[in-house]
Amino acid sequence: MSKSVWLDCDPGHDDATAILLALHWPGIELFGVSTVHGNTSADNTNLNAARCLEAFGAPEHIKVHGGARKPLIRLPHHDVEIHGVGGLGGVEGLPPKDDERVLARFDHPRGHTRAIDAIARAVQRSWQDGQGTKISVVSTGPMTNIALFVSVYPELLEGVEQFVFMGGGVGVGNRSAAAEFNILCDPEAAQIVLDAPVKCVMVPLNVTHTAIVEDSIHAKILSPNGALDNGKLPPAATPLRQMLSTLITFFAEAYKAVFGFHLGPPLHDALTIAYIAQPELFTCRRFRVDVELSGKHTSGETVVDLWDYSKSDNTWGHTGKNCIVTEALDVMDFFDKLLECITRCDSVSPLNRKS
Amino acid sequence: MSKSVWLDCDPGHDDATAILLALHWPGIELFGVSTVHGNTSADNTNLNAARCLEAFGAPEHIKVHGGARKPLIRLPHHDVEIHGVGGLGGVEGLPPKDDERVLARFDHPRGHTRAIDAIARAVQRSWQDGQGTKISVVSTGPMTNIALFVSVYPELLEGVEQFVFMGGGVGVGNRSAAAEFNILCDPEAAQIVLDAPVKCVMVPLNVTHTAIVEDSIHAKILSPNGALDNGKLPPAATPLRQMLSTLITFFAEAYKAVFGFHLGPPLHDALTIAYIAQPELFTCRRFRVDVELSGKHTSGETVVDLWDYSKSDNTWGHTGKNCIVTEALDVMDFFDKLLECITRCDSVSPLNRKS
Amino acid sequence: MSKSVWLDCDPGHDDATAILLALHWPGIELFGVSTVHGNTSADNTNLNAARCLEAFGAPEHIKVHGGARKPLIRLPHHDVEIHGVGGLGGVEGLPPKDDERVLARFDHPRGHTRAIDAIARAVQRSWQDGQGTKISVVSTGPMTNIALFVSVYPELLEGVEQFVFMGGGVGVGNRSAAAEFNILCDPEAAQIVLDAPVKCVMVPLNVTHTAIVEDSIHAKILSPNGALDNGKLPPAATPLRQMLSTLITFFAEAYKAVFGFHLGPPLHDALTIAYIAQPELFTCRRFRVDVELSGKHTSGETVVDLWDYSKSDNTWGHTGKNCIVTEALDVMDFFDKLLECITRCDSVSPLNRKS
Amino acid sequence: MSKSVWLDCDPGHDDATAILLALHWPGIELFGVSTVHGNTSADNTNLNAARCLEAFGAPEHIKVHGGARKPLIRLPHHDVEIHGVGGLGGVEGLPPKDDERVLARFDHPRGHTRAIDAIARAVQRSWQDGQGTKISVVSTGPMTNIALFVSVYPELLEGVEQFVFMGGGVGVGNRSAAAEFNILCDPEAAQIVLDAPVKCVMVPLNVTHTAIVEDSIHAKILSPNGALDNGKLPPAATPLRQMLSTLITFFAEAYKAVFGFHLGPPLHDALTIAYIAQPELFTCRRFRVDVELSGKHTSGETVVDLWDYSKSDNTWGHTGKNCIVTEALDVMDFFDKLLECITRCDSVSPLNRKS
Repeated sequence: MSKSVWLDCDPGHDDATAILLALHWPGIELFGVSTVHGNTSADNTNLNAARCLEAFGAPEHIKVHGGARKPLIRLPHHDVEIHGVGGLGGVEGLPPKDDERVLARFDHPRGHTRAIDAIARAVQRSWQDGQGTKISVVSTGPMTNIALFVSVYPELLEGVEQFVFMGGGVGVGNRSAAAEFNILCDPEAAQIVLDAPVKCVMVPLNVTHTAIVEDSIHAKILSPNGALDNGKLPPAATPLRQMLSTLITFFAEAYKAVFGFHLGPPLHDALTIAYIAQPELFTCRRFRVDVELSGKHTSGETVVDLWDYSKSDNTWGHTGKNCIVTEALDVMDFFDKLLECITRCDSVSPLNRKS
Repeated sequence: MSKSVWLDCDPGHDDATAILLALHWPGIELFGVSTVHGNTSADNTNLNAARCLEAFGAPEHIKVHGGARKPLIRLPHHDVEIHGVGGLGGVEGLPPKDDERVLARFDHPRGHTRAIDAIARAVQRSWQDGQGTKISVVSTGPMTNIALFVSVYPELLEGVEQFVFMGGGVGVGNRSAAAEFNILCDPEAAQIVLDAPVKCVMVPLNVTHTAIVEDSIHAKILSPNGALDNGKLPPAATPLRQMLSTLITFFAEAYKAVFGFHLGPPLHDALTIAYIAQPELFTCRRFRVDVELSGKHTSGETVVDLWDYSKSDNTWGHTGKNCIVTEALDVMDFFDKLLECITRCDSVSPLNRKS
Repeated sequence: MSKSVWLDCDPGHDDATAILLALHWPGIELFGVSTVHGNTSADNTNLNAARCLEAFGAPEHIKVHGGARKPLIRLPHHDVEIHGVGGLGGVEGLPPKDDERVLARFDHPRGHTRAIDAIARAVQRSWQDGQGTKISVVSTGPMTNIALFVSVYPELLEGVEQFVFMGGGVGVGNRSAAAEFNILCDPEAAQIVLDAPVKCVMVPLNVTHTAIVEDSIHAKILSPNGALDNGKLPPAATPLRQMLSTLITFFAEAYKAVFGFHLGPPLHDALTIAYIAQPELFTCRRFRVDVELSGKHTSGETVVDLWDYSKSDNTWGHTGKNCIVTEALDVMDFFDKLLECITRCDSVSPLNRKS
Repeated sequence: MSKSVWLDCDPGHDDATAILLALHWPGIELFGVSTVHGNTSADNTNLNAARCLEAFGAPEHIKVHGGARKPLIRLPHHDVEIHGVGGLGGVEGLPPKDDERVLARFDHPRGHTRAIDAIARAVQRSWQDGQGTKISVVSTGPMTNIALFVSVYPELLEGVEQFVFMGGGVGVGNRSAAAEFNILCDPEAAQIVLDAPVKCVMVPLNVTHTAIVEDSIHAKILSPNGALDNGKLPPAATPLRQMLSTLITFFAEAYKAVFGFHLGPPLHDALTIAYIAQPELFTCRRFRVDVELSGKHTSGETVVDLWDYSKSDNTWGHTGKNCIVTEALDVMDFFDKLLECITRCDSVSPLNRKS
């Protein structure tokens, strides 16, 4: 039976790959997409999500719903250094922002903040008061929308199978000495989600930093049987693959310049969809996870209670462990699946029809 | 021209008097009521608001909309010591919870969390995209609902004239050494409201502690020309006045026992409506006000920047002063108006028709 | 019987008046002076203390001992705006820094950090293992030295009668929205002192802001029977009084410009000596007092638990109330005593012998 | 040329091995020992240090100086679970507490708090105003004494070669989800030491957890050529080795029960001496390291700025990187040296002479 999925994202290069997987991984039924401030402004993530849905051949009924333009309490931060101007810096071949099919992706005029209502309707449509199936809600950006959904629609949480989020780290950060970007952007939102009476699954930096798009994989993204030839990448087999290659190239250069990743960029957000489709690709353990909200040096740190010290109640009356933390990934298998999704995407992508 | 008002409350004894004023102070047009966790549970505040609306003769179109059942992030706290069991402890003569007219006050089945949508509709109805009048949104409890409204409906904030809240103190607290109850319950929500691009008006403890219902006023609440007779209160002129007297009596005893108030109880929440109807009853100054979110001893304190040190931007790009702080009240005039409202209420209260 | 006193200070205009009182208030036996970073650098406070001792005719055996050059953990702050360059800005007529009698005030070559050893020796000398009298240790600056003394010499604390400090406020600050300068400079030191198993007495802004040197008092400082003549101050009766007048004038102008004090400057630090000599000049209550160490807006605030919520143990195993908070001062009586001390000082001050 | 060393410790099983190494590693000249609250009470650590010095054949001039009985600000914590009652739980064969040679180890009557003066004298004796050699000050417990030394004797810091401390972790804790025991006990002290204008070397959990006393090493501790025989440990060759074996056995069982270490206990504190004697056993990098003082979940965490975000000044005016963090250890070589030290100790230990 297929998995109902909602995707809340802030594209973003790796968010784009998460959208591709959500559309083409067998067994995933994508109900809709919402967007949030994060890697770039809320306006940009909104448009980028629509452009990606269009480029990846999404069915017409999959719409994009704009969400929070800023964190609950803190100042917004965008990551131009990693994602360039507009959030999909260096990516060539996407439909333009004013493409009529792109604009048709928006259920509501842009600027309206109704992501949480769209999530609520999707939960109701999938769950049908217990007659249907629960939905997995994925977050690949700051969790502002998810936190607002939890706060405004608590009675719908029993229709949510799980919150799966890319964010945080176990003893590691990336955008401060102690914190990862998505959590650092809106730590209060993350804590609200972790405290909700719903299963949470965390895909931290420790795992995403193992999902490196090395050149050998980049070659296969360009062409199904592609390989390096004297260190040179092969030509792109299709316009879609050419577009994906420009995406990987920009992201690789950003990660090399900023974080010293020499083998390739980590495909953080894509792992959330992989977890929902095939959790057996991951090894996991359950822990108490909290977000540090008040530290001078550690604000936004995900504190994973490896030694099981925390027994305290949360605000919903639950105690103890609240999160499944993914700890390792079958990297080879993951990239095989990714490549299969690209092949499936090739057959429906309008980019490929254009030429 | 009358003032459009929305009232978000957690009745609560003094909230009940705010409802009475919102219904009967000339020039106030009450659009609706929403309720929030606080003095007692969200279920109780919801029912209590409906019972008060009914008792005070509210028009049928004024409904009660249930809101947040807990603070954004923190554990909920209720104040049984001050408000007794159920939130209106000791109050005699209110309609019962299952009174059909009380139940008709609920726009939605209870348990649904739609306060913010009701506020949004009221703003739209009053404002009419700039053709109508802006609405004053009053908060007399923890500001969870208001913060969620700000976060989910930022595009409607231009239809809000002001947020007027009872809460906080200038250098004084009541439910911790440094913090006042409403703010202490949900400090993050209060900060979100203070940061919003809307005029804020704070009615702090410093002012509400001057609005003491002394026995001479209690006597006039019981009877329009009532006075103390050898220290004894006069008999109640009407069932409504009898009910209000039991409310004042319980509240007075709680304040005497807990805080050592010997002259009578402070009518905190009622001052918010007074401010909207007749701001000239108050003296005020503008300051930067922030809520301490992370202190060990000061969490929930309203930090009023009397010396004007803070020049920093808030998360919406505004700088500097963000709040009008009421500093003094014309106490005599306020109670005169309150007594006039009770007289007007007498003529429409179903309590008076019953006998 | 006279009171043994140690004075730890950071002169500073009002510190200078504290030194004068410690030398000339009957019943006070000053054992020595130590200095600390604060109003100005540790080098400056050290020299200024020596210059004041000399100007006020201190006996030769009273020495100045240099102490901490910075707070325990935080960055040092000096208050040029209030105390001018060098800490005694605008004060005319003090002995120069290289005056040989000034230099003879230093027990140790300058630069050495031995204030705590000097305090320890004074305690031992006064207390004599229970055979003598306990000593009152006064702090009129940041409490770094006192905190180090407490930490390094815990076994001598039974020889300390009380720590009397000017600092903090009850719901008011001056150098941040919530904190007073002395405490704000080294909040951790203040907490260490408050937690020590010794009686603490706090002289907060609430009291010191009532000890205003109005023009009528300034006139009497200039001349024993001095009075304003058409708003003009009388001429100085002695060089000492002329010097004190320049001190008051500069301090008054600073307080007018920075804090809007129009009647005159508050003589903060002088009240500590007044408390030791004549506690009956003050009304006081005991409270739990803690210093906020971690707040975003409230760091350095003295949290006075007016409602008695705090019952928790401190680090020495004590519970509950830890500080006598002065709440009101007999202002007229205080200034009478100050003027008497100046008259006594007149008869021994080398400034007066010079001409 | 030999290295001058001062050892501040809280024995504690692994502290005992640090004492042994400080006495017998060639090229180390131990100037003295001070003790601090920590694994057990200050009284216990004081006595335990003296008993260890005596057992390991320390020259008579090496004395034990008692230090801080509690952290600077926080409540003291002892670790009975790991170190048993008295701090050296399960250790058999040490001299009793009232042994006259043990008592002769105390320079001062017990109970006096003069550790920092002893450190100061040692620095002066070794350094001789620049004519001699700088001294390495080692901390294997909470850093209260070292912080007080830094605060009281800043002018002697130029005579300190380095502060080498066992404590903290890079993304790992042991006594909270985020913090290591020594730092957690007195985070403010640790920050003071890290901010001092002296080279700091951190030996974190990440390294000490690689120095595991496996059974094969335990066998060689028992006997120079000892080996496991069908999983059984050999008999002890000397009383000293028997004593050390009981120490390792208790510590191993504690680590198995509390932290799930199945191969043996980590010899944390011993690595500090190894670093001073042979830094080439370690790989290291320089980072900015700060201690989180105010986090709700992260208080006491050592925040190692792996991405080099922190450029801010510290309180002494220094910027940027402040600590050499050891990252890996040549484990085999370290244990070879440890075993050589035990052999040298065998020839002078009074324990061996007794029988």
